[in-house]
Amino acid sequence: MYRTNTCGELRLADAGKRVTLCGWLQKSRDLGGMTFIDLRDRYGITQLAFNMETDAQLCEKARKLGREFVLQISGIVKERESKNLQIPTGEVEIIVEELVILNEAKTPPFTIEDNTDGGDDLRMKYRYLDLRRAPVRNNILLRHKMAQQTRAYLDAQYFTEVETPVLIKSTPEGARDFVVPSRMNPGQFYALPQSPQTFKQLLMVAGLDRYYQIVKCFRDEDLRADRQPEFTQIDCEMSFVEQEDVLNMFEGLVKHLFQSVKGIEMESVPRMTYADAMEFYGSDKPDTRFEMRFVTLNKAENNLVSGKSFKVFDEAELVVAICAKGCANYTRKQLDELTDFVKRPQIGATGLVYARVNEDGSIKSSVDKFYDEESLKKWAQACGAEANDLILILAGAANKTRKAMNELRLEMGTRLGLRNKDTFSCLWVLDFPLLEYSEEENRFFAMHHPFTAPKPEDVELLKNGQLASVRANAYDLVINGVEVGGGSVRIFNKELQATMFEILGFSKEEAQNQFGFLMNAFEFGAPPHAGIAFGFDRLCSLFGGAESIRDFIAFPKNNSGRDVMIDGPSAIDEKQLNELNISVKSIG
Amino acid sequence: MYRTNTCGELRLADAGKRVTLCGWLQKSRDLGGMTFIDLRDRYGITQLAFNMETDAQLCEKARKLGREFVLQISGIVKERESKNLQIPTGEVEIIVEELVILNEAKTPPFTIEDNTDGGDDLRMKYRYLDLRRAPVRNNILLRHKMAQQTRAYLDAQYFTEVETPVLIKSTPEGARDFVVPSRMNPGQFYALPQSPQTFKQLLMVAGLDRYYQIVKCFRDEDLRADRQPEFTQIDCEMSFVEQEDVLNMFEGLVKHLFQSVKGIEMESVPRMTYADAMEFYGSDKPDTRFEMRFVTLNKAENNLVSGKSFKVFDEAELVVAICAKGCANYTRKQLDELTDFVKRPQIGATGLVYARVNEDGSIKSSVDKFYDEESLKKWAQACGAEANDLILILAGAANKTRKAMNELRLEMGTRLGLRNKDTFSCLWVLDFPLLEYSEEENRFFAMHHPFTAPKPEDVELLKNGQLASVRANAYDLVINGVEVGGGSVRIFNKELQATMFEILGFSKEEAQNQFGFLMNAFEFGAPPHAGIAFGFDRLCSLFGGAESIRDFIAFPKNNSGRDVMIDGPSAIDEKQLNELNISVKSIG
Repeated sequence: MYRTNTCGELRLADAGKRVTLCGWLQKSRDLGGMTFIDLRDRYGITQLAFNMETDAQLCEKARKLGREFVLQISGIVKERESKNLQIPTGEVEIIVEELVILNEAKTPPFTIEDNTDGGDDLRMKYRYLDLRRAPVRNNILLRHKMAQQTRAYLDAQYFTEVETPVLIKSTPEGARDFVVPSRMNPGQFYALPQSPQTFKQLLMVAGLDRYYQIVKCFRDEDLRADRQPEFTQIDCEMSFVEQEDVLNMFEGLVKHLFQSVKGIEMESVPRMTYADAMEFYGSDKPDTRFEMRFVTLNKAENNLVSGKSFKVFDEAELVVAICAKGCANYTRKQLDELTDFVKRPQIGATGLVYARVNEDGSIKSSVDKFYDEESLKKWAQACGAEANDLILILAGAANKTRKAMNELRLEMGTRLGLRNKDTFSCLWVLDFPLLEYSEEENRFFAMHHPFTAPKPEDVELLKNGQLASVRANAYDLVINGVEVGGGSVRIFNKELQATMFEILGFSKEEAQNQFGFLMNAFEFGAPPHAGIAFGFDRLCSLFGGAESIRDFIAFPKNNSGRDVMIDGPSAIDEKQLNELNISVKSIG
Repeated sequence: MYRTNTCGELRLADAGKRVTLCGWLQKSRDLGGMTFIDLRDRYGITQLAFNMETDAQLCEKARKLGREFVLQISGIVKERESKNLQIPTGEVEIIVEELVILNEAKTPPFTIEDNTDGGDDLRMKYRYLDLRRAPVRNNILLRHKMAQQTRAYLDAQYFTEVETPVLIKSTPEGARDFVVPSRMNPGQFYALPQSPQTFKQLLMVAGLDRYYQIVKCFRDEDLRADRQPEFTQIDCEMSFVEQEDVLNMFEGLVKHLFQSVKGIEMESVPRMTYADAMEFYGSDKPDTRFEMRFVTLNKAENNLVSGKSFKVFDEAELVVAICAKGCANYTRKQLDELTDFVKRPQIGATGLVYARVNEDGSIKSSVDKFYDEESLKKWAQACGAEANDLILILAGAANKTRKAMNELRLEMGTRLGLRNKDTFSCLWVLDFPLLEYSEEENRFFAMHHPFTAPKPEDVELLKNGQLASVRANAYDLVINGVEVGGGSVRIFNKELQATMFEILGFSKEEAQNQFGFLMNAFEFGAPPHAGIAFGFDRLCSLFGGAESIRDFIAFPKNNSGRDVMIDGPSAIDEKQLNELNISVKSIG
């Protein structure tokens, strides 16, 4: 047996015991007469003491040990003279009597400390060393706990975890598939699943009733920051349910996770329609940790900006304001910063109008020459702006302006400290449009996927061709402005499904070719069903209070889809290519 | 809300309640005045009653429903007149008042009954219908429970579940990889993992201490019956442990699974060396549900067969016997069958010698003309054969004869009813040879993998070049003659690892090229570590008492690696190939 205890469990009550510990040398301090070593393992850090007086030889040996050496020591647990109450083991130390060097270590390329000196690239290359650092290790442990608690909740709700296949079939619709050449079926390819969507629907046809899986999915997209070619979903589907049942079930999951993982009692999750989210936040995933709702100043029924000869506002499709509480004292420099912010190409506003509500209630705006005090007071009233508040206004084409205002709102939220990563605000966004029009391709696409059911009350609109107005029984779960999950009630009626395919421009042959096996399955008695999927990496990073998902994945890839640690992908040899019946084109 | 209850939960105590159920029409019986329907969902079957007298219209509607129609009914729970005590819901029925056809169903291509009339191919094509049958559904539910309980045990033992990547790097050693062309890295390929071996070792270097994962693995091999290109492992690794720790930990897992899933209290798992397994059972995975151990009749120190002018035995490298209890009365026909059995090409024995111990203790053998009663009695004694027992003897080259006798022993076990699928016998097989000599390639290969540690007491043999004699700290868990898991203590010392690579014929460059990232990681302080992996599909089928793993996989592939339900793999279009920078060779 290598050890009697871990480095995280000894306490004052253990004083006097003889123990054997194993771990890595975190750091050592040579104080002349005494040498102290912090021994680290996954569970904690325990201080080792070597005394020059009582065992000079052992102490000399200890002094020569390098950082990250792997050690096995035996000795007696003793109460420390100078205690460290920051850590649970900080009241004791081990008076070492035996020391075995289990393995030596080269000096690591960066420090194994909470705040390391290693840059991102180096940390990715030596990921196995980065994982030794407590913050990264804790992320991995958090992820484990999240998975455990997800399973605990869903198991208790009679969900069955079913593994769906990884080697499936490519579908041209949607994002790009990763494919796998089949040696046994020359010229043919498997695809890796972008999601188990069709399989989970088949499981409902199969009568499994409630399915879940924490499952790897794959998408061959150009990687933006913080996207991974392989990612993990909590994938769920239920039979004989309506939207309300799904919302309640998964609100329950989210509450359970907050309670069991973070110790937070979450109130019931508020709901907002997609239409409201767009109108009041300019986003289908509003960050509801703070209000600062949009106020439309040029409503048809109550236009507060037109007819005052200010062309920018008169000609704008949308004039929209937010109220930044207590910001009336913003300096010219700060206002210029905000103007620069909204004018950045990725945001694309042409300018920023402001109005300050002064201490005395008077209002000063950047468009004073067009609007008198009375007009400005109406703005302030509409925005709920009071003394010391700052009104920020953007104008232009509706969609673009909403998006820009969304960015500005988030920026103001950040500046005002309203986006604390330890505060969590959940929101259901409901009633998404069923279809989305692509100007480029001059046709409608499914916003969610082709199996999403329209709202029953909107089916008539669908049949009448009022496609843009049809709402779907689709829902997203948003936490702190991040879409962490989404799903829909599925179509289970074959006539309605046929109508959908027709609208989406599929010929009968194409529909049969791509979704034939699912369509066929639906002929044999499909139950009403609905589902949802959560981005597990994202959910973990959110719970961990981090922006990036990368540190919640044990071995992530970089933005070129490379694992720089193993240096993959890589070339394969000619024999392998021949067996697979493929060749690599010469790279011009 | 679609339903108030499932089809599996109503009992006599619910009589009088108004309920709403959903499910599939399992079968209907029209008795003139009454029509009965069995409504099925995942949870059970509930009988519906329609009365012609009280509601003729509803009853008429019910009569027209086809098998597998999806129904929603409301009605009153009532005590049944003729109870079916075989099923938990069999004391009640629902007097239906409302009936909604949620979906119609075409007549399924095979019956949805415990014993179906559907052949394998049809059942695979309509897998979603096969999954509706209770035996197949129960396998999937068993699998879920096995995964749950595996996690429960390992979580309690401080193992951390870590997801390792699916898109990794191809290694030419070992079985054939499935590969994935990388669009972003033209000419390069990811490989799908055959196991997370290197990653789990890196997690030990990273200090994770205890890792597990229930994980999909991939192997592009020609599929024998009951092998799947994608399969699932329970993959585990531990740090600061010796072999004994691993055996105890996973003996605990197996006991926990038997206890929690099957309600069987398993005794501690016996251990056998590889050498003994080969000598006494002719197999490294002996079925220990029954004894019938091999007895060598031509031992050098006690040769019971030589010098009696029977050339076959005199010239044989091995003469080996088993004793079939109570089989002395086997007829000539039965003995001929056994002879034919061992002479089949896949077994390859040249003949079978027998000796019967008669009621009166006299012995009659097929080689009476060479061996007198006294010789035969010595055989009987060596074999522990008593009155009415049958001794069966094979002779020839040692390895081949052992293998043949293994098959004969299993056949006799089956004939004697000693291989009950509800009896479970576990065994650790230990001390495997470290290396295996390939006559074909004229070199040694790692029996397990190149990171397996030799037994410390055999390291000298390794260094002296006595390679065939070196035993490994490797272990297999065998249940009922099936290898369900295997693992080893790993090498964590870089000099020893270098020696191993040298012996295995890797140049330094090759070793660096293939395992460089692991070797490099080991330079930064690798802890002693060891691990094991279990074939999860196989373990589930064993617990389910089935021979085939296929019915424990929701969506299995056939022997050509095809999913006949989705009809994949399939051709992909030219655009996709171009993006991936590959082309398909014309198929001659």
